[in-house]
Amino acid sequence: MTLLRPVEYEKASDEVREVYDEMMALRGTKDVAGFWKYLANDPATLRRTWNSIREVMGPGELEPMVKEMIYLAAAIAYDCDYCIQSHARSAKAAGMSNKMMGELMAIVAMAAETKSLNAAFQVPLESYMKR
Amino acid sequence: MTLLRPVEYEKASDEVREVYDEMMALRGTKDVAGFWKYLANDPATLRRTWNSIREVMGPGELEPMVKEMIYLAAAIAYDCDYCIQSHARSAKAAGMSNKMMGELMAIVAMAAETKSLNAAFQVPLESYMKR
Amino acid sequence: MTLLRPVEYEKASDEVREVYDEMMALRGTKDVAGFWKYLANDPATLRRTWNSIREVMGPGELEPMVKEMIYLAAAIAYDCDYCIQSHARSAKAAGMSNKMMGELMAIVAMAAETKSLNAAFQVPLESYMKR
Amino acid sequence: MTLLRPVEYEKASDEVREVYDEMMALRGTKDVAGFWKYLANDPATLRRTWNSIREVMGPGELEPMVKEMIYLAAAIAYDCDYCIQSHARSAKAAGMSNKMMGELMAIVAMAAETKSLNAAFQVPLESYMKR
Amino acid sequence: MTLLRPVEYEKASDEVREVYDEMMALRGTKDVAGFWKYLANDPATLRRTWNSIREVMGPGELEPMVKEMIYLAAAIAYDCDYCIQSHARSAKAAGMSNKMMGELMAIVAMAAETKSLNAAFQVPLESYMKR
Amino acid sequence: MTLLRPVEYEKASDEVREVYDEMMALRGTKDVAGFWKYLANDPATLRRTWNSIREVMGPGELEPMVKEMIYLAAAIAYDCDYCIQSHARSAKAAGMSNKMMGELMAIVAMAAETKSLNAAFQVPLESYMKR
Repeated sequence: MTLLRPVEYEKASDEVREVYDEMMALRGTKDVAGFWKYLANDPATLRRTWNSIREVMGPGELEPMVKEMIYLAAAIAYDCDYCIQSHARSAKAAGMSNKMMGELMAIVAMAAETKSLNAAFQVPLESYMKR
Repeated sequence: MTLLRPVEYEKASDEVREVYDEMMALRGTKDVAGFWKYLANDPATLRRTWNSIREVMGPGELEPMVKEMIYLAAAIAYDCDYCIQSHARSAKAAGMSNKMMGELMAIVAMAAETKSLNAAFQVPLESYMKR
Repeated sequence: MTLLRPVEYEKASDEVREVYDEMMALRGTKDVAGFWKYLANDPATLRRTWNSIREVMGPGELEPMVKEMIYLAAAIAYDCDYCIQSHARSAKAAGMSNKMMGELMAIVAMAAETKSLNAAFQVPLESYMKR
Repeated sequence: MTLLRPVEYEKASDEVREVYDEMMALRGTKDVAGFWKYLANDPATLRRTWNSIREVMGPGELEPMVKEMIYLAAAIAYDCDYCIQSHARSAKAAGMSNKMMGELMAIVAMAAETKSLNAAFQVPLESYMKR
Repeated sequence: MTLLRPVEYEKASDEVREVYDEMMALRGTKDVAGFWKYLANDPATLRRTWNSIREVMGPGELEPMVKEMIYLAAAIAYDCDYCIQSHARSAKAAGMSNKMMGELMAIVAMAAETKSLNAAFQVPLESYMKR
Repeated sequence: MTLLRPVEYEKASDEVREVYDEMMALRGTKDVAGFWKYLANDPATLRRTWNSIREVMGPGELEPMVKEMIYLAAAIAYDCDYCIQSHARSAKAAGMSNKMMGELMAIVAMAAETKSLNAAFQVPLESYMKR
C-alpha cells in the first residue's frame, strides 16, 4: 500500500487533464513528469503549482539558462534529489555546459560552508545590513 | 563576554595580515568585511576559506553577475542573513537589476515549495534519475 | 557490513523487551516498527524516546487526528521520509481524509515558500514581535 | 542603505494597491503586514503569493484553527521567526489555547528529534513504504 | 505583546519550581537559563526536556568536554544561536581551548560543504552502505 | 542517462590521478571512495576539497577519534547519508565504541529537539550572548 499513486491521464479528471494538456502543449511532450502526476492527487495544488511555475520560469529579464541554474542551485541547497536531477537536465538543455555546472556546484558548496562558518563564529550583521 | 571578537588589522598576526592585504588589494578597499575578521580567530580557517572563495568566485565560464546570483540563491536557501545581504550587494554591483533580483527570489521560493511538495507527496525518482 | 542492525525481540535484552512489550500492548500489535528496532541498539535512547513520544502523543487538549497531522506537517518540513510515511498512515487511521491531507500538504509547502521569501526579502520582525 | 524597503500604500502602484485593498477587505484591517510590504518590491510575487495563501488558507475540510496550527508547526520546523510569530497569533485568534500551543510545540520538537534519530541510526524504510 | 514570557521562580508553580531547584542544585547556580524559563510555559515539556538533557549529558563513556563539543557541533549545523552560545561556553568550561574550538568549527563547515557536494554531484551510496 | 558518472583511475586525467595517488598513499588503500570519483568530474573542486579535508582532518589539538565524531555529529545534523555512513566507520576505526556512538547520536537528537524548542518558544538570546 503506497501512500499516494501517480494519476495517469486516462484516469484523470477533466480538471487534471486540463493541466496536463497545458504542460504537454507548452513543452511539446507526450507525457508529463511524475512529480505532476503525484500532485494530481490534489487537483487544486496541481493547478496552483503549475500556474506559479509557469509564471516564475517564464520569459523575464533573466535568460532561461540562468533561471534554470538558479533553480538548480536552490534545489541543491534544499537537498531535493528529484529537483536537482530535473533542473540539471533543463539547464543543460538550455545551454549549461559541464564546466558551468561544475562552477555552479562549487559556488553552492561554498555558500554552505560560509553559512556554517557564519553561525559557528557568530558573525554579527554589519551596521549597514539592517533587516 | 562575547564568544569571539573581530580581529582588527592593528592587532592581527602577520599570517592574518597577509590575508587581509590580499583581500584589500584584490578588491581595492581599505578594510575587510566583518566576516573575515571573525574567521581570523582561526588563521588556518581564514586562509583556507579565502583561498577557496577566491578560486570559486574568480574568472570562469560563468560571468561574475551570474556567479554572484547563484551564491545569492544558495544563501537564501541556506538562510544566512549576512551572506544574503553581502551577495545581494555584490550581485547588484556586478549588474543585477531589481527586476532580476525579484525573479531570482521568486525562483528560490518556488524551489522551496516544490521541495516541500516532493517530500509531502513522496514523489519517487524517475527511472532515468538513477543516483 | 551494515552500520547497525535491527534488534529483534528474540535477541533483545530484558531492558529492550520491556519497551517492546509496552508498545505492543498499547497499540495492540504483535511487532514493533523498524524505527524502534534500530534505536534498540542504544537501550537508553529507546526507552527515553518511547517515554517521550508516549507522553507527547498521548491524550491532551488536541484530538489524536490533529496531533498526528501536526506531526506529519513537521515531518514533511524536516524532510524525514520514514516519519512522513508513518505519520500519514497514523493520521489516516485517526480520521484524516485524502482531502484533509491535501490541504495539510499545501499549507506546509506554502510555509516553505513564505519562509524562503522572508529570508530573500530580509523582512524585519514587526515591532510587536519581540523575541 | 537597506537592501529593500517596505512599499507603503501611498507610494504603491495600482497593481500593488489592488492587492493591499483585497487584504484589508478580507481581514477587516486598515493596514497590511510588513511581510507583504517587502514582497511588494516585486509586484508579481506579491500577487502570486497572496493568491496562493488566500486559496490555501481559505475554507476547506480543515477548520481554520487547525489550518493555522499546521502552518505554525511548519513555520517552527522551517525556523522562520516572522512566520512563527504571525501564525501563533492567528491560531490563537482562531481558538488555540495556550495548552494546545504547548502540545503543538512538543510534537514539533519530537518530530525534530525522531528525524535526527532516523538519520543517525540510518533506519531503512519499511517494505510497505515504497516511495 | 510578546508571544510568551519567561516564568520567573517567584511566580512559578510547584511543578516548575521543582525542576528549577534540581537545575540549580546540580549546577550550583542561583538562577536558571532563559531557555528553561520559556519552556516553563509548558511544565510537561520543561520536565521532559530537563530529564532528557540530564540523562543525555550526564556521565557516560564520553568525557564531558567531548559531549559538549558534539552538542556544539550539532548546534552549529542546526543553526541555533542560543544553543551555540550556550554550549560553546559549557565546552570551554569543560576544557575546550580556542584552538580546539577552531578545529571543531572547521570540521562542521567541512561537513556542510561535503553534504552540499554530495547532493550536487548526486553521489550514490557505496554498495556496503545499505540503509 | 545518469547525471554524472564516477571518474575511474584508468580514464582520469593526470590532474585527477595526482589527487587519487595522494589519497591512496595517505590512507594506504588501492582505490578511492565513490565520493571523490564523482567530484572528479570537476577537477578543481576535487583538488580544493581534498586539500581542505586533508588540512581540516589532519593532526591538531583534537585527537583523530574526536575529530571523526564531530564530523559524524555534523553529518547527522546535515542529514547526509553518505557522510554519516563514511564517518561512522572512520570514527569506529579510530576507536569509537558502540556505546560512544549511542551517546553521540543521543546528543545530536537532543540538539535537534532543543533547536526546535528554541524556535517554538521564541527564546531570546541572553544579554551576554551578543552576536
